[in-house]
Amino acid sequence: MNQPASFPGPRPARIVALDTLDVRFPTSRDLDGSDAMNPDPDYSAACVTLRTDDPALCGYGFVFTIGRGNEVQTAALAALAGHVAGLSVDALVHDLGGFARRLAGDSQLRWLGPEKGVMHMAIGAVVNAAWDLAARHAGKPLWRFIAELPPEDIVAAVDFRYLSDALTPDEALQLLRAAAPERQRRIEQLLAEGYPAYTTSPGWLGYGDEKMQRLAREAVAEGFHTIKLKVGLDAADDVRRCRLAREAVGPDIAIAIDANQRWDVPDAIGWLQQLAAFDIAWIEEPTSPDDILGHAAIRRAVAPMPVSTGEHTQNRVMFKQLFQAGAVDLVQIDAARVGGVNENLAILLLAAKFGVRVFPHAGGVGLCELVQHLAMADFVAISGSKEDRAIEFVDHLHEHFVDPVVVRDGRYRAPLAPGFSAQMKPASLRDYAFPHGRAWQT
Amino acid sequence: MNQPASFPGPRPARIVALDTLDVRFPTSRDLDGSDAMNPDPDYSAACVTLRTDDPALCGYGFVFTIGRGNEVQTAALAALAGHVAGLSVDALVHDLGGFARRLAGDSQLRWLGPEKGVMHMAIGAVVNAAWDLAARHAGKPLWRFIAELPPEDIVAAVDFRYLSDALTPDEALQLLRAAAPERQRRIEQLLAEGYPAYTTSPGWLGYGDEKMQRLAREAVAEGFHTIKLKVGLDAADDVRRCRLAREAVGPDIAIAIDANQRWDVPDAIGWLQQLAAFDIAWIEEPTSPDDILGHAAIRRAVAPMPVSTGEHTQNRVMFKQLFQAGAVDLVQIDAARVGGVNENLAILLLAAKFGVRVFPHAGGVGLCELVQHLAMADFVAISGSKEDRAIEFVDHLHEHFVDPVVVRDGRYRAPLAPGFSAQMKPASLRDYAFPHGRAWQT
Repeated sequence: MNQPASFPGPRPARIVALDTLDVRFPTSRDLDGSDAMNPDPDYSAACVTLRTDDPALCGYGFVFTIGRGNEVQTAALAALAGHVAGLSVDALVHDLGGFARRLAGDSQLRWLGPEKGVMHMAIGAVVNAAWDLAARHAGKPLWRFIAELPPEDIVAAVDFRYLSDALTPDEALQLLRAAAPERQRRIEQLLAEGYPAYTTSPGWLGYGDEKMQRLAREAVAEGFHTIKLKVGLDAADDVRRCRLAREAVGPDIAIAIDANQRWDVPDAIGWLQQLAAFDIAWIEEPTSPDDILGHAAIRRAVAPMPVSTGEHTQNRVMFKQLFQAGAVDLVQIDAARVGGVNENLAILLLAAKFGVRVFPHAGGVGLCELVQHLAMADFVAISGSKEDRAIEFVDHLHEHFVDPVVVRDGRYRAPLAPGFSAQMKPASLRDYAFPHGRAWQT
Repeated sequence: MNQPASFPGPRPARIVALDTLDVRFPTSRDLDGSDAMNPDPDYSAACVTLRTDDPALCGYGFVFTIGRGNEVQTAALAALAGHVAGLSVDALVHDLGGFARRLAGDSQLRWLGPEKGVMHMAIGAVVNAAWDLAARHAGKPLWRFIAELPPEDIVAAVDFRYLSDALTPDEALQLLRAAAPERQRRIEQLLAEGYPAYTTSPGWLGYGDEKMQRLAREAVAEGFHTIKLKVGLDAADDVRRCRLAREAVGPDIAIAIDANQRWDVPDAIGWLQQLAAFDIAWIEEPTSPDDILGHAAIRRAVAPMPVSTGEHTQNRVMFKQLFQAGAVDLVQIDAARVGGVNENLAILLLAAKFGVRVFPHAGGVGLCELVQHLAMADFVAISGSKEDRAIEFVDHLHEHFVDPVVVRDGRYRAPLAPGFSAQMKPASLRDYAFPHGRAWQT
């Protein structure tokens, strides 16, 4: 039968459903992931799938959580269904900035943040799923999809609201244009060299000294140049662990430490002065992620020890102030905490403008898979730097992903498959669905 | 039958259930509550009831939202059920500090904030319900229950984590002890005089000029000394509305304005300079509630116009910084945004230490009912001041509450019924339950 005249080609794809799933891994049964604030996490993901009427085209996203409350996060994803139902894929992939602004700007949902916490993380996951869909549609891995967008399109993806006292659209455009001539060369370089990784695997608080030292030595043998230890439960323990780690890896390996928000400002200062002797690469999350002025005070007091935060920093407005206040020497970004790729582009542009290096947060469930794309896009199209920074790596739970990260010789290899590497394997979704999956029946 | 020896008295009450309900009022059908950021709110409440095995003893709380997403907020309340089931009422009412810390400190749920957004507001509502229960148990209105606690008990209720660089428990105790000798006199004074109110009823953006002027004159006739106008959509409109309002009320009535986060920092400064001529009592929420440094910059630029924020300020760490940075001349507190009575006590203590006046945010559903208790407790036991401040009042939706606020001659009368005035009428819960209540069937 002939196509009628009003349908000259195939019908353009539309989004027909926003599916959600509560997925949890019973990681609290061992002590992987234990730190000073999180003694027994069950690494979890509130998963979202944007389904289109083309069965071969979906977009995948998720929020990482650590167990209880993952059902609340899943409910927040479902609350966004009205924003995607019926949306044309073409319209979506050509206006990812407008899409993200519509979600973050829903005046009724905005009350639940604004732009923070459960609702904002849900928006981030749906926005990330839209970018996954767009990159799949374009047949490119997300890092390359972003890195090959015209500078004007990257600027259009960013919500500059509340940023204009620190970064204007024009400044962002100049920055992106300055990096553009070297894009193609950097893509080749990235494909050849990969992107530096650092590892937190030796440093969980639940591990004994010998296991920590063994894992630290193994990390060095595997090619990592930076390791990270969790600290903050007991000062004497931390002094001993830093000394033992330094003995294990020698003087040429960077050792970062992470207090996971354990301290008040005066406590942080006193505690860190005891650890100054071990040539600390950075102290991460010394206090509340909300305490911009507190980080600035700690940084002044413990200099030259570099201070860092960011994995729990709720949005671009907080990052802006961390930079304006000179509160940090470097920052983490997290792919599943803020309002998706768009807001992370805003943060990467701010970091580039303020000359602050980014060491992306990863681990958990799928955070490595996601954040590598953002770091690589940053290298190609924004900062132009990668050897002075590194992406966190924890070798855990990657087997559940269709396109898992590949880390070799201490470096993330650039992903080649189309999309954001966010899709989990159907068997994993089935077995770890909460509370009825097989893993939760024991 | 004789009581066995091991049960010498009546069995002590325990909490047996945490019930939740999604309640919404279709307020978007008119334009009450319209402002520059919230054009069409459906004022809503995610309600929680702590039920005990004594049918006469319950604790009531709620989170105020503006419509969509109220189901997410309700799911977050339900996620806290495990923290209350089986709890002895005696243990609860004697350790409201420990209770609030256990909820905020749940390491898995904490990931969803930390201490911000949907999960933190849910914790706040459950904590408020516990205070309601405690005050009912004691047979006192909450303001008086708090105001008659020993200073040590108030200090024990506060979580000083992340505050000690600005306020220590010892400093808080000194402050409370200094206010203690006048408590009884102030209770009598409050019962006799009431507490000043101000009204936002004339100022919604959806109202025309004549209606605004008429309502402003009526407010003055009713005894209010301060009115508030919404601004931020159109600068020329705002100049005209401020001029008309000033003409309507004369020179002796304070006019505050509220931009509901509409502006970037440079925009706020330019816009406010056009309104300086109208003797503005304060500009509320000129920009993002997260932007501490932005408020400080605006305040410096528009001085002497007082700058204010707080109704969306997520927690005590942000209030601490607003005070440390000199970012505000006064603040709003909100009874249903932060982690409950405990965190509001921390904020009131911080405000007292920094000498910042508090003008509590109210309106919405039941916010007046709640926040009056906090302001009155502050007057009696913390700041000792009330005539230099005022509680917001909007005459809307009070008919749904069992113990509604009474505002006469521009003053809140002190509530006398036991509890936190948080209980809604059963008929209202039935008719406005979403989506199956009668109000949602049309």
